[in-house]
Amino acid sequence: MAKIAVVGAGMMGTALCVPLADRGHDVRLIGTPLDAASIAELQATGRHSRLGVELPGGISFHPVAELDVATADVDAFVLGVSSAGVSWAAQALSPSLGRRCSPVLMLSKGLELGPEGPSVLTEAFRRGLSSAAARGCQPVAVCGPCIAGELCRRVPTVVVLTGHDLALARRFAAWIETAYYRVRVHADVVGIQVCAALKNAYAMGVALGAGLHERAHGQGGSVAMHNYEAAVFAQAIVEMQKLVTRLGGDAASVCGLAGTGDLTVTCNGGRTGRFGALLGRGHSAREAALLMPGVTLECLEVLAVLDRFMKSARPGELGRRDVP
Amino acid sequence: MAKIAVVGAGMMGTALCVPLADRGHDVRLIGTPLDAASIAELQATGRHSRLGVELPGGISFHPVAELDVATADVDAFVLGVSSAGVSWAAQALSPSLGRRCSPVLMLSKGLELGPEGPSVLTEAFRRGLSSAAARGCQPVAVCGPCIAGELCRRVPTVVVLTGHDLALARRFAAWIETAYYRVRVHADVVGIQVCAALKNAYAMGVALGAGLHERAHGQGGSVAMHNYEAAVFAQAIVEMQKLVTRLGGDAASVCGLAGTGDLTVTCNGGRTGRFGALLGRGHSAREAALLMPGVTLECLEVLAVLDRFMKSARPGELGRRDVP
Repeated sequence: MAKIAVVGAGMMGTALCVPLADRGHDVRLIGTPLDAASIAELQATGRHSRLGVELPGGISFHPVAELDVATADVDAFVLGVSSAGVSWAAQALSPSLGRRCSPVLMLSKGLELGPEGPSVLTEAFRRGLSSAAARGCQPVAVCGPCIAGELCRRVPTVVVLTGHDLALARRFAAWIETAYYRVRVHADVVGIQVCAALKNAYAMGVALGAGLHERAHGQGGSVAMHNYEAAVFAQAIVEMQKLVTRLGGDAASVCGLAGTGDLTVTCNGGRTGRFGALLGRGHSAREAALLMPGVTLECLEVLAVLDRFMKSARPGELGRRDVP
Repeated sequence: MAKIAVVGAGMMGTALCVPLADRGHDVRLIGTPLDAASIAELQATGRHSRLGVELPGGISFHPVAELDVATADVDAFVLGVSSAGVSWAAQALSPSLGRRCSPVLMLSKGLELGPEGPSVLTEAFRRGLSSAAARGCQPVAVCGPCIAGELCRRVPTVVVLTGHDLALARRFAAWIETAYYRVRVHADVVGIQVCAALKNAYAMGVALGAGLHERAHGQGGSVAMHNYEAAVFAQAIVEMQKLVTRLGGDAASVCGLAGTGDLTVTCNGGRTGRFGALLGRGHSAREAALLMPGVTLECLEVLAVLDRFMKSARPGELGRRDVP
């Protein structure tokens, strides 16, 4: 049994508390400055209303003000912040990680555009740490197909952990794995995380099909715009391989859980799918975002990074390549 | 404009008549011995009730008795028979192809277990031809994500043609391509066709998730068993790469339209998905097949070939490999 601090009470951070609690760990869920309402609800009722479940016992809930107190003696951190929250988390955890180099598992998915091109969030997090904290910190990332609402309901799920310290990744795997939450470990730190980020952008493209179908007053069922969606899906896989290779990862990772698996699950619903469908119905990106107030659209954040990166690429370097 | 005989009035053969007619070809749709009712309906009403559409003009409909007469002067054949009908088609077309080597485009998908292991249907068809007919015949196969009910409604679709005679494949592409039916040409004759066959077996596996969810009285929506389905999907892609390589194809083809694209579309519904969901609900394969009377389950045919092939493989040759 370990003492584990989960920082960030969004959907995924909160959902991961379920396997951690089921494994008997001492779990402390600590909100970010944006999670005050969720933490208050969890303290009062044990429920997370966006997930729609009551959490099991063995989890304590803390507002951000209690971050230092609640994490003083923990064995590990789990970061459940959004990609935009990574730099906040690096700053907030630097004092603690500077004193004692606790292992960090990151649930965040995205890309950050640094001076040398897009970088994965384990790197972005390390860059944000104080030098004392960064010295011994080699974060592990968890990627692969995992809808938070299913994980917290104990739906069978398989994810992949990656990090430069594979022994640490295996240690996390041993901590978090349950019968319903299976964990693989993979060495392709860049490729796995780039897949996890890109899938949001490409799932948006696949979801255009559902919106085009609605726009044409089509009905649900097995005859819709699935041929179109499938062609975009295959094109996405081929483009993801190209981008992963360009960013220093292994194209083979795109075939696995973090690529084809996560793209599939992201196409099956959720925020990105709704946003893509709104575009397919004819809304502009701005209109579609206004129709989804309060929702973090990670697809747009990834596309913004890719857009700036593509504009800086050499001519032809990332030229069009049709899917075979 | 070409004179094109489509042999087989099932869903896909009939659907392909739509782009052919839209391109202005002289299209003759000829039923197999199993298509008498469909041909009679098409002759009387112009409708194909299983597709649920009325076909455009420019297509004539013929029962199997008119095969020789209706195809005497054609420029090309399109084979819309099921995998089980390939040997019938080879026999039925041998006289004509023996006299004049017309190009053949095959819509059939599956594997046939020959003396040297599983072979793709373009090979199976050639083996079934008379020696005179086989001499000049190098069939082209069309693979990739294409639900017939969507193609005949002109939903945007991208498919891939493959054959040992790439110039002929390009000629077919030029004949059949329309604004909504886009065609790529690919040289990996074995890999593309093995993907097209395997996807049925793996889509059945992915569909188990929907059945397990129903069995647990789950409701539809974005929270279901999608994590499970996505893990099976990724495992399927990795296993398909292994099988394609073993059967002499190029693993990279699995990433494209014929692999990830077609697996996606097959998971989105249709017979294979219903069958897999029945298994997931707890029915045996026998019970599930009885609940779907009159339906050709190509997933079971492919699995039977793979089962016999795997049993004949060397120990360890096709051993388990987890998806990364």
